[in-house]
Amino acid sequence: MNSTSLLTFSLPITFTSTFSCDVIDEAKKRYANLINRQLEGGKPVDGIKRLGTVRLQIENRTCQNSYPNIQSNEAYSIHIVEDESVIRSVTIWGMLRGLETFSQLVYKRNKDAGNLINVTNIEDYPRYAHRGVMLDTARHFMPMKTITKILDAMSYNKFNVFHWHVVDDQSFPYTLRKFPEMAEKGAYHPKLVYTRDDIERIKREARLRGIRVIPEFDTPGHTFSWGKSFPELLTPCWGQGRPDTPNYPHHGPREIINPTLESTFDFMRDLYMEIRDDFPDEYVHLGMDEAYYACWQSSPNVSDWMSKRNMSTYNQIEQYYSERLIKIVDKIGLKSIVWQDPLENNVTFNKETIIQVWKDKKNDVNNPSVKNWEEYAQEVAKLGYNFILSSPWYLNMISYGQDWRNYYEIEPTDFTSNENEKKLVKGGEACMWAEYVDGTNIHSRIWPRASAIAERLWSAKNADNIEDAKFRLDEHRCRMIRRGIPAQPILNGHCNGEEWEYESKEQPPQQSVAISNYYNAILITLIITNFFSSFILSR
Amino acid sequence: MNSTSLLTFSLPITFTSTFSCDVIDEAKKRYANLINRQLEGGKPVDGIKRLGTVRLQIENRTCQNSYPNIQSNEAYSIHIVEDESVIRSVTIWGMLRGLETFSQLVYKRNKDAGNLINVTNIEDYPRYAHRGVMLDTARHFMPMKTITKILDAMSYNKFNVFHWHVVDDQSFPYTLRKFPEMAEKGAYHPKLVYTRDDIERIKREARLRGIRVIPEFDTPGHTFSWGKSFPELLTPCWGQGRPDTPNYPHHGPREIINPTLESTFDFMRDLYMEIRDDFPDEYVHLGMDEAYYACWQSSPNVSDWMSKRNMSTYNQIEQYYSERLIKIVDKIGLKSIVWQDPLENNVTFNKETIIQVWKDKKNDVNNPSVKNWEEYAQEVAKLGYNFILSSPWYLNMISYGQDWRNYYEIEPTDFTSNENEKKLVKGGEACMWAEYVDGTNIHSRIWPRASAIAERLWSAKNADNIEDAKFRLDEHRCRMIRRGIPAQPILNGHCNGEEWEYESKEQPPQQSVAISNYYNAILITLIITNFFSSFILSR
Repeated sequence: MNSTSLLTFSLPITFTSTFSCDVIDEAKKRYANLINRQLEGGKPVDGIKRLGTVRLQIENRTCQNSYPNIQSNEAYSIHIVEDESVIRSVTIWGMLRGLETFSQLVYKRNKDAGNLINVTNIEDYPRYAHRGVMLDTARHFMPMKTITKILDAMSYNKFNVFHWHVVDDQSFPYTLRKFPEMAEKGAYHPKLVYTRDDIERIKREARLRGIRVIPEFDTPGHTFSWGKSFPELLTPCWGQGRPDTPNYPHHGPREIINPTLESTFDFMRDLYMEIRDDFPDEYVHLGMDEAYYACWQSSPNVSDWMSKRNMSTYNQIEQYYSERLIKIVDKIGLKSIVWQDPLENNVTFNKETIIQVWKDKKNDVNNPSVKNWEEYAQEVAKLGYNFILSSPWYLNMISYGQDWRNYYEIEPTDFTSNENEKKLVKGGEACMWAEYVDGTNIHSRIWPRASAIAERLWSAKNADNIEDAKFRLDEHRCRMIRRGIPAQPILNGHCNGEEWEYESKEQPPQQSVAISNYYNAILITLIITNFFSSFILSR
Repeated sequence: MNSTSLLTFSLPITFTSTFSCDVIDEAKKRYANLINRQLEGGKPVDGIKRLGTVRLQIENRTCQNSYPNIQSNEAYSIHIVEDESVIRSVTIWGMLRGLETFSQLVYKRNKDAGNLINVTNIEDYPRYAHRGVMLDTARHFMPMKTITKILDAMSYNKFNVFHWHVVDDQSFPYTLRKFPEMAEKGAYHPKLVYTRDDIERIKREARLRGIRVIPEFDTPGHTFSWGKSFPELLTPCWGQGRPDTPNYPHHGPREIINPTLESTFDFMRDLYMEIRDDFPDEYVHLGMDEAYYACWQSSPNVSDWMSKRNMSTYNQIEQYYSERLIKIVDKIGLKSIVWQDPLENNVTFNKETIIQVWKDKKNDVNNPSVKNWEEYAQEVAKLGYNFILSSPWYLNMISYGQDWRNYYEIEPTDFTSNENEKKLVKGGEACMWAEYVDGTNIHSRIWPRASAIAERLWSAKNADNIEDAKFRLDEHRCRMIRRGIPAQPILNGHCNGEEWEYESKEQPPQQSVAISNYYNAILITLIITNFFSSFILSR
């Protein structure tokens, strides 16, 4: 090891910038704190040159009321040299990614326990623009502490989209301004709602981390909880010759949005206008998955309505509803993301719509009609839609052992297609459906499994050496633990005494500092060729 | 609902007893606190008769230096009546079980939020004497906070054995008095050890909860970490014509206890004498699983040693080692528990030895030679050994969905056998191997999945209605959350605003108290026929 390639420094590290911006000011504080925590008690090493202040240089000074979007430039560069180290970016969002990488570059070796950073040059940028985590807050309510901790951890993994599957059949925890009764009657419990303050806070905390918030109000299926306050939104199903009568297991007494009433579309317009005003993102997620027809099929009223419109098959109702809804949303200025299902029922969308591919044989092993995700991706691409991939990344589908390997080994363009079709892939999402998770287990179940997905979505296609990734991922999970995220283990081993739930026993201070006896590893950005002297980029 | 069958009370509940005993004194405090926490803010209900003090009446006043054992009588009865309620037991250990049940009887209904308990008569006792949780602290170190939290949760589920799989190949965190270098060199990290104080604390906290501690120092396999301090304990394996040379994947350079040296047995005697002095239980766990012969087979020294003893097959070495070890342990006054493996290699044990059946096709789907647990149970029973069952209860083997149902549906006597052989079943253990768990995820992964096993081991054979158990288990997981255990969800739903990570938002006090809008449910002991007026027992 050539010690001339090393620099040392005092804590806290000082980041300087001439540009005042809340996103950057908060990030400077956050990363100075994280580095302090990582290097707890660390001091400069004698006899090694000092790192000076780290200058943050941002080309485009847009800040106020600015939110990240799908076009945001997240590139950055890092130059660590003796005299004037600098992190450069085009946008404030790129600077956030640079600061995260920088915070993963500092380290201590076991023996001297002094702060070190390597002389380093990094040029880095993401492969995909849309790198999301989908969180279901309807099967189980996720407290604000849970959500903000997930946003924190997302930033440690350079995720940039929080896809908020906020409501579903089971509960409606979102407080709408115009329709407060939706949450009052649809939430699991009066305490288990997102208040207006909560919603503002999620938006603010996400923005400060360069994360877009894309809420999903899934229709026409998955809407049982909507009917608690607005029963007329749902279709009265018929059983035993009567409306509002269940016929289990085919349908309940009332379910799926009622497309036969004009009032339905008025309501949806009002709802999405409010969502548009609540969230700055140009995209909203319309859901549209799993529209089951049994209730519509049971209803003579629906049959009458269909005859009047010359409809002969039930997927024509889905087409009618979906195409009207997307026009409404388009008209009020929003672009849409939808799950893949309506395409399979011959719904057509405008070409700005992004399709989320979620089906895969592995997620539904007992259903012989489900195909491999690659076939669905191919079908969507053939239709010319941009899409994001989730099928292989269902975090809720747990299994014994190192299933992160399955996530890591996915190549999103590995479907039968030409080069133009491959370009339709805009990214992907790790999805956490909440049938079996809540604040008790969600963090350890997301992390570090989603970190493997994060690397796949950020890094170059050829950054695919899984045996190398294994140790970087293990180190990254320890880093997340030091940052307060209970990321679960992926291998036998330990985090050098910084285990979760470990409480110090007043040991001599020289024993309490070791951070890493492996090496200084960066999970997300880099492939390390020589642990202590140089890095090359993932591209 | 007949309100004459209800009583109300003020907080804290007063338990009186004329018998002074640390186990009971501490339990009175603990349960008064738990009930306070469950009923937070609850007040007596106007117009309902009052519950007086609850008298604890223990027949056998043995307390000081008393520890639970496999013969301990855990029966208790509870009589809730207006004037003089009483919990009766033969032993202090039975009283602990009675207090736990009592703490599950108190409740509040949503509306009036007043404290209630039903007029109740319960006679209860466990079906099996050995109801354990096995914890592996070697693949990952479990901090003291993690272990004591597990002991707490075990008491909420009436488990009575903490099987401590304390060391293994990966690490040796146990501080021995005579051989401190075992932990100094064998632990993952100097901080990741159980000090003498820690060991005493585990013993003390377990005793206060009526839990036996049975440590396991697994030999002859699973001993790699032992060789870090005492390399001569392990067999030098041969490769490329040389000793201490690996031949992957068959064997490492040195592994498995070396049975050819007398010093090995001297060491084991010293070790087990220390364990005997550390732990009051009459049983110790000797491990003896997965003794792989590749290293012995590689060694010409072992071959020579075998010829001198007229041994022709390698399982004869296992027999030699195992039978000598169990005689040593027997001679110093300890009875043994061993995993099932040595029996398969024709090792014979004295009939006081308890066999732990752990193998099952479901835990090892890719190995065609592994049979169903019922066949192993049958084999062990045919040989006349007492045994405990673990095969169907490997908590580390996770899968998507409600796998607690698989645990609950196990009937331990469902193997081909006669009535006498069925009596050899002494209980069972939920096993948590730690390849993929540590303090970050272990609590939510054990609970409430192990609760299903706890009920199976405590309750009568015919207490097997899973659809009923489902709601009691769901309520019990919310109860554990209120007690500080992050038990994961088993169904869609919620805990009435007392979700894990939920932080109160200064809401009006009348909104902050609801405990349960289901009913007053007891998980472990009882089948409830009429939620608000009477109970019948599980037998």
